[in-house]
Amino acid sequence: MYSLGKKVIIHLFGKSHSAFVGCILEGIPADIMISEDVIQQEMRLRKPKGQIGTPRTESDCVKITNGIVNGITDGSPITIMIENMNTDGSKYLEFEKKPRPGHADFPALTKFKNFDIRGGGQFSGRMTAPIVAAGSIAKQYLSVENIQIAGFTRSIGCIHDKEDRNFDDAIRSRKFNTRACTEDIDKKMEQEILDASAEGDSVGGIVECIATGMPSGFGGIWFEALDSEIARAAFSIPGVKGVEFGKGFDISALKGSQSNDAFVMDDGIKTKTNNMGGILGGMSDGMPMVFRIAFKPTPSIAKTQNTVNLETKENDTISIKGRHDPCIVPRAVSVAEAMTALVLADQMRR
Amino acid sequence: MYSLGKKVIIHLFGKSHSAFVGCILEGIPADIMISEDVIQQEMRLRKPKGQIGTPRTESDCVKITNGIVNGITDGSPITIMIENMNTDGSKYLEFEKKPRPGHADFPALTKFKNFDIRGGGQFSGRMTAPIVAAGSIAKQYLSVENIQIAGFTRSIGCIHDKEDRNFDDAIRSRKFNTRACTEDIDKKMEQEILDASAEGDSVGGIVECIATGMPSGFGGIWFEALDSEIARAAFSIPGVKGVEFGKGFDISALKGSQSNDAFVMDDGIKTKTNNMGGILGGMSDGMPMVFRIAFKPTPSIAKTQNTVNLETKENDTISIKGRHDPCIVPRAVSVAEAMTALVLADQMRR
Amino acid sequence: MYSLGKKVIIHLFGKSHSAFVGCILEGIPADIMISEDVIQQEMRLRKPKGQIGTPRTESDCVKITNGIVNGITDGSPITIMIENMNTDGSKYLEFEKKPRPGHADFPALTKFKNFDIRGGGQFSGRMTAPIVAAGSIAKQYLSVENIQIAGFTRSIGCIHDKEDRNFDDAIRSRKFNTRACTEDIDKKMEQEILDASAEGDSVGGIVECIATGMPSGFGGIWFEALDSEIARAAFSIPGVKGVEFGKGFDISALKGSQSNDAFVMDDGIKTKTNNMGGILGGMSDGMPMVFRIAFKPTPSIAKTQNTVNLETKENDTISIKGRHDPCIVPRAVSVAEAMTALVLADQMRR
Amino acid sequence: MYSLGKKVIIHLFGKSHSAFVGCILEGIPADIMISEDVIQQEMRLRKPKGQIGTPRTESDCVKITNGIVNGITDGSPITIMIENMNTDGSKYLEFEKKPRPGHADFPALTKFKNFDIRGGGQFSGRMTAPIVAAGSIAKQYLSVENIQIAGFTRSIGCIHDKEDRNFDDAIRSRKFNTRACTEDIDKKMEQEILDASAEGDSVGGIVECIATGMPSGFGGIWFEALDSEIARAAFSIPGVKGVEFGKGFDISALKGSQSNDAFVMDDGIKTKTNNMGGILGGMSDGMPMVFRIAFKPTPSIAKTQNTVNLETKENDTISIKGRHDPCIVPRAVSVAEAMTALVLADQMRR
Repeated sequence: MYSLGKKVIIHLFGKSHSAFVGCILEGIPADIMISEDVIQQEMRLRKPKGQIGTPRTESDCVKITNGIVNGITDGSPITIMIENMNTDGSKYLEFEKKPRPGHADFPALTKFKNFDIRGGGQFSGRMTAPIVAAGSIAKQYLSVENIQIAGFTRSIGCIHDKEDRNFDDAIRSRKFNTRACTEDIDKKMEQEILDASAEGDSVGGIVECIATGMPSGFGGIWFEALDSEIARAAFSIPGVKGVEFGKGFDISALKGSQSNDAFVMDDGIKTKTNNMGGILGGMSDGMPMVFRIAFKPTPSIAKTQNTVNLETKENDTISIKGRHDPCIVPRAVSVAEAMTALVLADQMRR
Repeated sequence: MYSLGKKVIIHLFGKSHSAFVGCILEGIPADIMISEDVIQQEMRLRKPKGQIGTPRTESDCVKITNGIVNGITDGSPITIMIENMNTDGSKYLEFEKKPRPGHADFPALTKFKNFDIRGGGQFSGRMTAPIVAAGSIAKQYLSVENIQIAGFTRSIGCIHDKEDRNFDDAIRSRKFNTRACTEDIDKKMEQEILDASAEGDSVGGIVECIATGMPSGFGGIWFEALDSEIARAAFSIPGVKGVEFGKGFDISALKGSQSNDAFVMDDGIKTKTNNMGGILGGMSDGMPMVFRIAFKPTPSIAKTQNTVNLETKENDTISIKGRHDPCIVPRAVSVAEAMTALVLADQMRR
Repeated sequence: MYSLGKKVIIHLFGKSHSAFVGCILEGIPADIMISEDVIQQEMRLRKPKGQIGTPRTESDCVKITNGIVNGITDGSPITIMIENMNTDGSKYLEFEKKPRPGHADFPALTKFKNFDIRGGGQFSGRMTAPIVAAGSIAKQYLSVENIQIAGFTRSIGCIHDKEDRNFDDAIRSRKFNTRACTEDIDKKMEQEILDASAEGDSVGGIVECIATGMPSGFGGIWFEALDSEIARAAFSIPGVKGVEFGKGFDISALKGSQSNDAFVMDDGIKTKTNNMGGILGGMSDGMPMVFRIAFKPTPSIAKTQNTVNLETKENDTISIKGRHDPCIVPRAVSVAEAMTALVLADQMRR
Repeated sequence: MYSLGKKVIIHLFGKSHSAFVGCILEGIPADIMISEDVIQQEMRLRKPKGQIGTPRTESDCVKITNGIVNGITDGSPITIMIENMNTDGSKYLEFEKKPRPGHADFPALTKFKNFDIRGGGQFSGRMTAPIVAAGSIAKQYLSVENIQIAGFTRSIGCIHDKEDRNFDDAIRSRKFNTRACTEDIDKKMEQEILDASAEGDSVGGIVECIATGMPSGFGGIWFEALDSEIARAAFSIPGVKGVEFGKGFDISALKGSQSNDAFVMDDGIKTKTNNMGGILGGMSDGMPMVFRIAFKPTPSIAKTQNTVNLETKENDTISIKGRHDPCIVPRAVSVAEAMTALVLADQMRR
């Protein structure tokens, strides 16, 4: 359940409130230069920023105990350990009795006897920390073959960035707290989060990812199709409710003559439009791969909600204190990038 | 590449214009009653209907050579063979030179030396015939545990069914050619297809699937999450560009207080709304699982399109004759149901 | 359970008395020339010969319905179907009550409700027919890279061939019914089988396999080590009780100075001896891979044996009629070769 | 390559001279009591003893950073870290030029660019330390279902224990340095090792493993057969050259009437003999599972050996200094037990 990939494989371990979270990253070949500084930069992009993130702060210091020697991979599995320092489980016991709406509590308590609910256990977003670290290694490996990945925030709540955005815009988003593409949108999105937070509420949003550099034919077919594997990895990120490539759901209202991307000679074979999001038949068509991931609002909110009491079997209410992000979307951008990198690195090695 | 599942596994084989398409379905336990009539009914739902489908007609007679004896599974792998009878490869040779926009031709020709382009080779929708047959067996197995699956057409082109629809509506769609939920919408959708077809064009649409009967906690976590695996299987269906659960992409614009499904006692623990589409943390929360799949318009259209000539490396045009569905959505409903059944049967056995 | 391999994968189906046995062979690349005559020759080597084999004769006509067109692989899964023609299940019902000593009956009846015991069900040696056919394809693929496989009978009962044997000897064994390396030993082995048969008894034996042409470093490490995977595949053959490489069990009584194969320059780097059977650290060291497989005597014998009655829970006796090989070793040589080919082809593609 | 299992899975990491060796053990269910003292006891059995082992001493302190809380598993992956403290790579550089006979050096240098030869890299017996720790956890899990595993030394060099040995004998071997079953044999085996060591040589031997408590039908069929998976895991242990079950290779010289284990009522269904080693058709027949593993002599010996110089491409000689076990068999007993435990735990969960 904790493993993704066939040749480049991530094996996750840890829980929200265990001593460590971490992973093994298997299958990165030997002799790849890996900068730990770059990993740490990616970790910073995942960190909560000011008032738009959770007050739980973690140093997120990534320790690589194996597989990288003097900044070079040695071909053996890479082991990543990240200490959990700022844990506080005191607020969680209530949820064993009263499951939080929108959270995994209820099915997890049904499924797992003695489920350790603190921090959401193995369902916690905390598990995405080693994913980002492993994803950064995968990215550095992919960059050897000129494959690049960048994401940005397409929308938060009702603030929707309606412009066409390209890879450079996505890179530029790294300097804004919300991962918006422009300062103007960043401010609006930040305000949207602060407004929700002030009401004891939360907001969702949409992340867009762009990957460039894959040659035509890159990827698999059928159950190993590139979009299948990206979608699978994306839905593994907590809070995801939708994934679409290219024009996505809007393509369903088009005619074939509108949706088909016409081929054209332009310093090689290109397509005039990219409605397909760079994917044909599960393979790259050589154009940038573009996809979007819809995140639901953080389920943990201070506002009073209706729930049930599992002991008394009666209706009840709950108001969630704890330390939670009013919006996870800005932090989720780096997780989406990391998952993409892991899938592409795996496909590259096949 | 041709295998899906861990305990209940489908192994596909065949191509559009090979003698047979088929599959092995492994992992269905012994002593399950399987009706071949029911399988054949499901196959009929996948068949092209009148003028809204391709003129290529196949008898789609399913031969089960192994694994089912006197209507009862024997626990060994089930082998499904379907003969390809009505093949006509004469129209395809042109595409080796001039790849069809929106089709897998271009990346497939790059990836596979000597790619057999006739009928789209292994990318053909023809491969979904054994998927539907295997899915029917998986459904019959799931029904032993009261898990039921039904899909319907949510939209075709600009005709969008905006009503709330439940499982019974989906079952009812089986009597309409477009798999719409009502006769009125069926007529509008049919006209939408015929209009596109008359122009030498095609249309896309959205399929919605509903699965009932999973208990709370059903499914996996992280990379084996129920939604991850459904999404992966759904994106393996040719032509899919998006997958969303519950409120899907629209949830990203909501507040947490709006999106969270409040728990309520109502003959057991239920949720008042089903914005999550029945999934929390990758597991069923006991509510019906609801998800939508966006299909692009069929890429093969008679209208003249721009493409390139791979030999001369010059711009060129193409008008696709062959025999193609102006809209695959009505037929895709049964494929979506089948994929869902295969994933759920696999999850059930773990 | 029925699948072996990661890149070149065999998926078995069928049972002793089902309509067909067969398999899908996935992962053989496109454009490999495959001779169906050669496959049929290999099938003949697996057939029972005269009085030393079972009177159940099967035409073993291999039908390849997919994946090979005009003698050339097309890269899609290869489907192999072999009809079961000469089935006679009348003798088997007794064994549901009185499990045969040395046979899988007892654990199979415990494990599988309604186990179909006819012909031994899915435990039957009949399942090795598609393995031999698939192995022949794997061999033809391996020969493109100059990897060759041949086996022979090292011993039957008390007749033990004590000579050093090389690849050419193994090839030569194809003309003898017992797969012995010389006519003289063939006659002795045949007599050993006939003697046992005359007494209503059976004999075991040892098969030796030699594979040449793997370069140094071929194979994997740890759980994908070449010897690990060969051993796993070999123990999957019904009746196998031991596998050893090179000097095998005898090496345990040696000193390191005796067992180590000294390296020497001899038209490249070679070893003077081959006590390791060509394997170091799970990889080929460039020398021929040599291993032996021990087969137990066929458990089905006419002699009266003690067993229990599962209904009355009392001691009982049994004398097995049916049609059985007094010795499976001669036929097992081709199965051992086929398994080896499947493992090597899989390793080659990784 | 570093992963074994389907439901209970071990993912290894580390190398002989990296900072840590360790593993993730995935799939052990929640609420199993695990004693770290018992783990540490098993680690001690793996340690070199006095003069019959290597002078490299490691504290082998097992740190479990995840998955076990207050001595109880929590169902999430268990992470095991063991520090490498006593590393000394100075002696190894020579082997990059002059590969050691009987060692993985030569194929590893061919296969892996920049292979880190110190301590044998990822081929080192050092990797068996986390296997023993994980195996101890698997054993404690198996004991909940009354499945017990114990091994002992059947032979070292020419000292062969010819008695029938049972589970209690195997347990008793834990108090002897060589893991012999009796004090008398222990002394002889120790002398055999010391004699070889005094000559700058090494010896091999045979380990026997016994597992009790599996019910009839336990295990899989075909490629998931119990003996297939045990053999695969056993051959993954460095230095293994043969695996046999029950009578093993000797069974090949018997008649069916001699080898078949007759069933008999005796407080349930038992067999009179156990020539099959408890395995029929890849499943347990309810009798103790008995198998033997042949180890070659440690290849690293002080005696001068012939090898080649990879740079000059000329014949050369080598005398290996370093710190090496003159016989690994006594330490390998706990590794064999651990591998068995991992396979059985995995089979139990399927």
